[in-house]
Amino acid sequence: MAVTTRRADAQRNIAAILTAAAECLSRDPAASTSDIAKAAGVGRVTLYGHFPSRAELIDAVFVQAIATGEETLGQVDLTGDPREALGRLVESSWQLVDQYRALLLAAQDSLPPGRVRELHADPMARVERLLERGRDEGVFRTDLPTSWLVSVMHNVMHGAASEIHAGRITSDQAAPYITATLLAAFRSD
Amino acid sequence: MAVTTRRADAQRNIAAILTAAAECLSRDPAASTSDIAKAAGVGRVTLYGHFPSRAELIDAVFVQAIATGEETLGQVDLTGDPREALGRLVESSWQLVDQYRALLLAAQDSLPPGRVRELHADPMARVERLLERGRDEGVFRTDLPTSWLVSVMHNVMHGAASEIHAGRITSDQAAPYITATLLAAFRSD
Repeated sequence: MAVTTRRADAQRNIAAILTAAAECLSRDPAASTSDIAKAAGVGRVTLYGHFPSRAELIDAVFVQAIATGEETLGQVDLTGDPREALGRLVESSWQLVDQYRALLLAAQDSLPPGRVRELHADPMARVERLLERGRDEGVFRTDLPTSWLVSVMHNVMHGAASEIHAGRITSDQAAPYITATLLAAFRSD
Repeated sequence: MAVTTRRADAQRNIAAILTAAAECLSRDPAASTSDIAKAAGVGRVTLYGHFPSRAELIDAVFVQAIATGEETLGQVDLTGDPREALGRLVESSWQLVDQYRALLLAAQDSLPPGRVRELHADPMARVERLLERGRDEGVFRTDLPTSWLVSVMHNVMHGAASEIHAGRITSDQAAPYITATLLAAFRSD
């Protein structure tokens, strides 16, 4: 019984820490573990007991954000003309990138190179399937590997987050700019 | 006389530290300031006297790398068909990105968001001028801002460095892939 209670406490603490971390990092990508522990209503020792480093905590928040995003992206209609489907997928994906923009900056700053992309394995697999279908149907180019086209989408989309951060484009402009760029870059001649 | 000697010593130390830092970071983007001080043949106190933090040292190495790169890029023939000129500029730029790939990873990891792009102001201004000329001559699209197209080139090119790091493309494939992607993304209809 005591063990069960301790487990339930631990789960409650982990959930509170992840929620607080997501909120704190969305306001400020440089938020410290002290800020996050305070917002979660737990001590720093408790926080470090579950997440031994700030990077591990950011990684866990990112895993959760991707899982939440996957629920949204799973609803996008990817049937019909692959170009129109790509437009719908960019639109939904962009809303997620925009919503998690500060968390993305924190992750790019704190996680090892390649880890942010690794965490995007599921959304990128969805893009890959759509691009493969478009190639089979003759509307997307086949002279470059699909994995390269997927990376171009990833980089252009995440680059848009930096353009907004720098004040060079607005959040409203991003999705149409990204779509116009990718449809041109991907089309078959 | 003593002051002059001290100044000359300081300049020699700074040059040795920057050279050692460039070499160490090229071998290992995670190289520590201790490794770098040792390779430069100076004490850590001397190193910290000139560069109070690892980030400031990486910033200084990056400034020097960009300045060296600018000498190379200044030789590229940007006259004639803007599409062919873009191909030549991508080829030369890519060789620099590839050469400084590990330093780029260190900078992306250690410098504040936006700083890597800020340090690219000169090479990006050159791209911007070429794109503007191509727009005036009707070969590049005018439905998206030039600054956006410049950022797409920056992100696709730096994304290629990550693709190589992850083993998904080879260094030889990068320049043709980047050029084929950008020429399609930028062309006017």
